[in-house]
Amino acid sequence: MFDCAIIGTGPAGMEAALTLKNRNKSFILIGPKTSSEKVYKAHEIKNYLGLPNIKGEDFSKAFLNHLDAMNIKITDDKIAQIYDMGDYYALQGKETQYEAKSIIIATGVRMDKPIKGEDELLGNGISYCATCDAMLYKNKDIAVIIDSPDEMDEVNFLSEVVGSIKLFPVFKNELNTEGKIEIINEKPIEFIKEDKKRVVITDSNRYNVDGVFILRKAVPLSYLIYGIELDGSHIKVNRMMETNLRGVFACGDVVGKPYQYIKAAGEGNVAAISVVSYLDELRRMENGN
Amino acid sequence: MFDCAIIGTGPAGMEAALTLKNRNKSFILIGPKTSSEKVYKAHEIKNYLGLPNIKGEDFSKAFLNHLDAMNIKITDDKIAQIYDMGDYYALQGKETQYEAKSIIIATGVRMDKPIKGEDELLGNGISYCATCDAMLYKNKDIAVIIDSPDEMDEVNFLSEVVGSIKLFPVFKNELNTEGKIEIINEKPIEFIKEDKKRVVITDSNRYNVDGVFILRKAVPLSYLIYGIELDGSHIKVNRMMETNLRGVFACGDVVGKPYQYIKAAGEGNVAAISVVSYLDELRRMENGN
Repeated sequence: MFDCAIIGTGPAGMEAALTLKNRNKSFILIGPKTSSEKVYKAHEIKNYLGLPNIKGEDFSKAFLNHLDAMNIKITDDKIAQIYDMGDYYALQGKETQYEAKSIIIATGVRMDKPIKGEDELLGNGISYCATCDAMLYKNKDIAVIIDSPDEMDEVNFLSEVVGSIKLFPVFKNELNTEGKIEIINEKPIEFIKEDKKRVVITDSNRYNVDGVFILRKAVPLSYLIYGIELDGSHIKVNRMMETNLRGVFACGDVVGKPYQYIKAAGEGNVAAISVVSYLDELRRMENGN
Repeated sequence: MFDCAIIGTGPAGMEAALTLKNRNKSFILIGPKTSSEKVYKAHEIKNYLGLPNIKGEDFSKAFLNHLDAMNIKITDDKIAQIYDMGDYYALQGKETQYEAKSIIIATGVRMDKPIKGEDELLGNGISYCATCDAMLYKNKDIAVIIDSPDEMDEVNFLSEVVGSIKLFPVFKNELNTEGKIEIINEKPIEFIKEDKKRVVITDSNRYNVDGVFILRKAVPLSYLIYGIELDGSHIKVNRMMETNLRGVFACGDVVGKPYQYIKAAGEGNVAAISVVSYLDELRRMENGN
């Protein structure tokens, strides 16, 4: 059981980790080991105070070196869903479950929009979580939509359970698969329910399956954690980075514009300090004060 | 006329300057040329993401180097008061007045408390601004309280106008003065009004004068700009760093805890982005749209 689980390894999540480390809290930092793709692919950043005219790649290195210097490790995993367990939270990773007293969501902003029919059929033939829902489709025929090669772990896991997979990689790919997995290089534009089947409609065909998995780098926020209050496509927070859920904090691009590194890092610091206060409060309550 | 005047050269003010420069806005950055004393005197900072385990002095250098790299100059001055001129703001420096369409207040947190009687007699025999009020005391006897040797410029200016000065430096000092200026190494603990005189009460004596100037590194916020809404001892802002006054933004320690460098810098970025939006809005209004 960690004091805090930080989800996201961009500037917000990393800064939150540094500050929690400084405050002697136990935490797990979950996300891509390479930090945020948006950071290392950045051309040049001119306004991160203290690091003049720095290229994205060097920026990313500076951040990762700082984590190293503080002996902070990144746990390379993707959280599909967070469950409120009453007095703690459980987080579903690809294969592992984590437990933490508090959560910092720093997953960045999701640029892609849901596909037509996705929101309507979610939980009714569409799933975002291979680990959670694979067994529902034992020996059945499914479609899987992925937005990066990183999701192939989960596709392979699904292939051990289900009957067949029609795989729709929505990115330029040279994937090689065999056996149960058939790659279809068409773009899904709509999902519908027809009789007992789900239909994946692409720009050129229709495919009938028993269920659909949509595996993206980021899951939609409303799915990630039940009951979180949004403001448009962002998590709603106050100036202390508190969400509407007790013990759940958010920071960085996920809480709104401006999408700037130093703003994200500053908010990560505030979220971590708020977690420290929250943990103090929890301890006082446990002690009956 | 500048697009923006930034008051304060700590991390918040400097980051605001970088971001405004990036956005091609004209601005003046006002404060101590050495950046914030609080920064360069810091022991070691462990959680400013990207600059691991850095000493305050090196931290300060990294910041000032970044300003150099972006060709940003600091104007070494102290703002005593800001006046709302309707469609722009005027700022009273030690000897110079500045004009700007918008303001970013990043003056840091004021640790010292007002002296007993100070708030009550402000504007009624007590002044914070030598330039503004010296002429009221032509050939008269005044007391001046200063909290650092930096204020001696203003004391010397006052001495050209007034009859005599009793100078109370409330710090360890080896000041040398002559002529009209008498140094009194006692600590003022209260101000009162008696007949037409003001009385400075110290821990060991009473001094009758015609007026009192209190010259500190920072002037109280409610005096700095009329009508600004405070939250305790901080300026109240929303998540976009907007104050209750149109065109006036604030960031860093002055808007509240946590008092952390990365938080201050992040807020400086947000304040600058808000200034950019505000200037766009002004331009649209001027164009009658």
